[in-house]
Amino acid sequence: MKKGHQVTMKEIAKRLGVSVSTVSRALKDSPELHPETKRKIAEMAKEMNYQPNLLAQSLRISRTKTLGVIVPEITSHFFASCISGIQDFANKRGYNVMICQSNESIELEKANIKTLVATQVDALLISLSRETNHFEHLDELYQREIPFVLFDRVQEDMPVTKITFNDQNGAYQVTKHLIEMGCKRVMYVSGPEDLYISKKRKKGYLQALKEFGIKEDPSLIKVTDLTQEQNIKVAQEIIDMNPRPDGVFCMIDPLAVDVLTHWKSKGIKVPEDMSLAGFTNNPTSAVVEPPLTTVSQPGYEMGKLSVSHLLDQLEGLASDEPISIVLDTTLVPRKSTGYTG
Amino acid sequence: MKKGHQVTMKEIAKRLGVSVSTVSRALKDSPELHPETKRKIAEMAKEMNYQPNLLAQSLRISRTKTLGVIVPEITSHFFASCISGIQDFANKRGYNVMICQSNESIELEKANIKTLVATQVDALLISLSRETNHFEHLDELYQREIPFVLFDRVQEDMPVTKITFNDQNGAYQVTKHLIEMGCKRVMYVSGPEDLYISKKRKKGYLQALKEFGIKEDPSLIKVTDLTQEQNIKVAQEIIDMNPRPDGVFCMIDPLAVDVLTHWKSKGIKVPEDMSLAGFTNNPTSAVVEPPLTTVSQPGYEMGKLSVSHLLDQLEGLASDEPISIVLDTTLVPRKSTGYTG
Repeated sequence: MKKGHQVTMKEIAKRLGVSVSTVSRALKDSPELHPETKRKIAEMAKEMNYQPNLLAQSLRISRTKTLGVIVPEITSHFFASCISGIQDFANKRGYNVMICQSNESIELEKANIKTLVATQVDALLISLSRETNHFEHLDELYQREIPFVLFDRVQEDMPVTKITFNDQNGAYQVTKHLIEMGCKRVMYVSGPEDLYISKKRKKGYLQALKEFGIKEDPSLIKVTDLTQEQNIKVAQEIIDMNPRPDGVFCMIDPLAVDVLTHWKSKGIKVPEDMSLAGFTNNPTSAVVEPPLTTVSQPGYEMGKLSVSHLLDQLEGLASDEPISIVLDTTLVPRKSTGYTG
Repeated sequence: MKKGHQVTMKEIAKRLGVSVSTVSRALKDSPELHPETKRKIAEMAKEMNYQPNLLAQSLRISRTKTLGVIVPEITSHFFASCISGIQDFANKRGYNVMICQSNESIELEKANIKTLVATQVDALLISLSRETNHFEHLDELYQREIPFVLFDRVQEDMPVTKITFNDQNGAYQVTKHLIEMGCKRVMYVSGPEDLYISKKRKKGYLQALKEFGIKEDPSLIKVTDLTQEQNIKVAQEIIDMNPRPDGVFCMIDPLAVDVLTHWKSKGIKVPEDMSLAGFTNNPTSAVVEPPLTTVSQPGYEMGKLSVSHLLDQLEGLASDEPISIVLDTTLVPRKSTGYTG
């Protein structure tokens, strides 16, 4: 080892053939790791004369009091609400917030991280783009010991704090509601199938069917790319089915609104001809006619919790250990499924 | 004058009792100024041995390729659309964008500017907060020669490029439409009266009345602070009026949607009992029942134009001279005013 060379966690990881995050967790004595693994890593760190990166630590103390936020899209009411929650609670604690938008592009997400790190933000809050299916840019943040949390769209294996919604349970609740309101043939209209939320919500849909002893019917699952054009195409396909479903659960509210608008233009009555439900509780879902049954997913609350936890960690008020916070969703029954309460 | 001291535009301005922006414009030989004014300022600059800030100019060349955007609120669909336009066209030209939200607070607006300037953004795009009624923070940006443009919510006297909508004409169009659809008693429901858009849209409303020879009736102008609670209170007051108006123009769509929702809950039929119109063309306005007549105000286009002009100036493709761009709005007639086309 060259004299004066500062050994990094990456070098320890390479020598042992483990990941950098494993080394990091071992050196923090994480209870998640096997004691034997921790012992081996601690020994290697000692042998290689590893010193924690004091410079990085001292830099982190001379704070800019600025946080960076990266979201897939700002025009989504859900992410805008997350940002409001983040900002309100960051401001309360004396931090300012800079926001970047990835436009659902992994390249832009990488560029955003680079920009925000260059401006020396104290920490980052990231919700991943639809395209993000490899994670070197997050690994690098982790290796450079730049604190960050993931919210809503997360990478489950990343050893950082993650805040998500219980999507499966929300979908289970809304499907169960449709069945309890009398629907015998409940359809699920999904977004792109590789999306995390498409999968989770499909699981909840299937869970409810199973609970009521209803057999899964592949003809009652449809997929759209969530463009208005495709949404309307799917809405027409449903009208043309014989027999039609009697209840339709759409993965997100804007999709349900597109379906509703098209159905109304073709004389289909909701809920008399078919029941309809969405997910997210966008403001629009309450003002369409009939008002749309949906699942409330409070973005403001998610933003607030994400930033509060991050700042607690940053300021030494909470343990450095990554945790996983799963927020509950709530069924919001309205007229579109025959609810009159 | 101390040797080695770099004379600033501010000192020249102080000596002559004029504003810094006048000095700046004079030294750029702006055609807006009187030749005599320019001559005096040029002489004083020479006398004081003024040197343009070459350091600032060279710093500006070593660019971070990052732009800062400040908007009052991100949850507004209009500002989210502006941001999308800014970002798409900034990205196309190799710039990344960082966004800050002032939450309609002048203090937060100042903090945002400080943060973004500290991160060495190349330039700023700013839409002012509702509270911003003094402008030292903008003057300071100007004096430090940090390029910025103002969009939508602007300070008219600031010698920088400003991009706005023709709000007065939009309000004129929608009021005229209500009258042409047969309304004899058209009401204007305004937001807080000190807001720029409240004033501009009231002017347009009055302009249309005047054109049709209808006398202004103070009982046909109501004001709300735009909270849902106040909006519903005003909606009820309108129901209780005797005689009622037969057409109501609400300053923004979310207000019109609140009014519509309340009226429907009280059995008022739109447009049979009263016609109703909004402004902005939010997505919600198209999906409520009946769909809402409104005025389209393309935020994406505004964002695109703002950033394109700013980058042209920054990269020397356009003159440094501040210009004022006024975008047109378009009437979007729908069922809520009896339109069936």
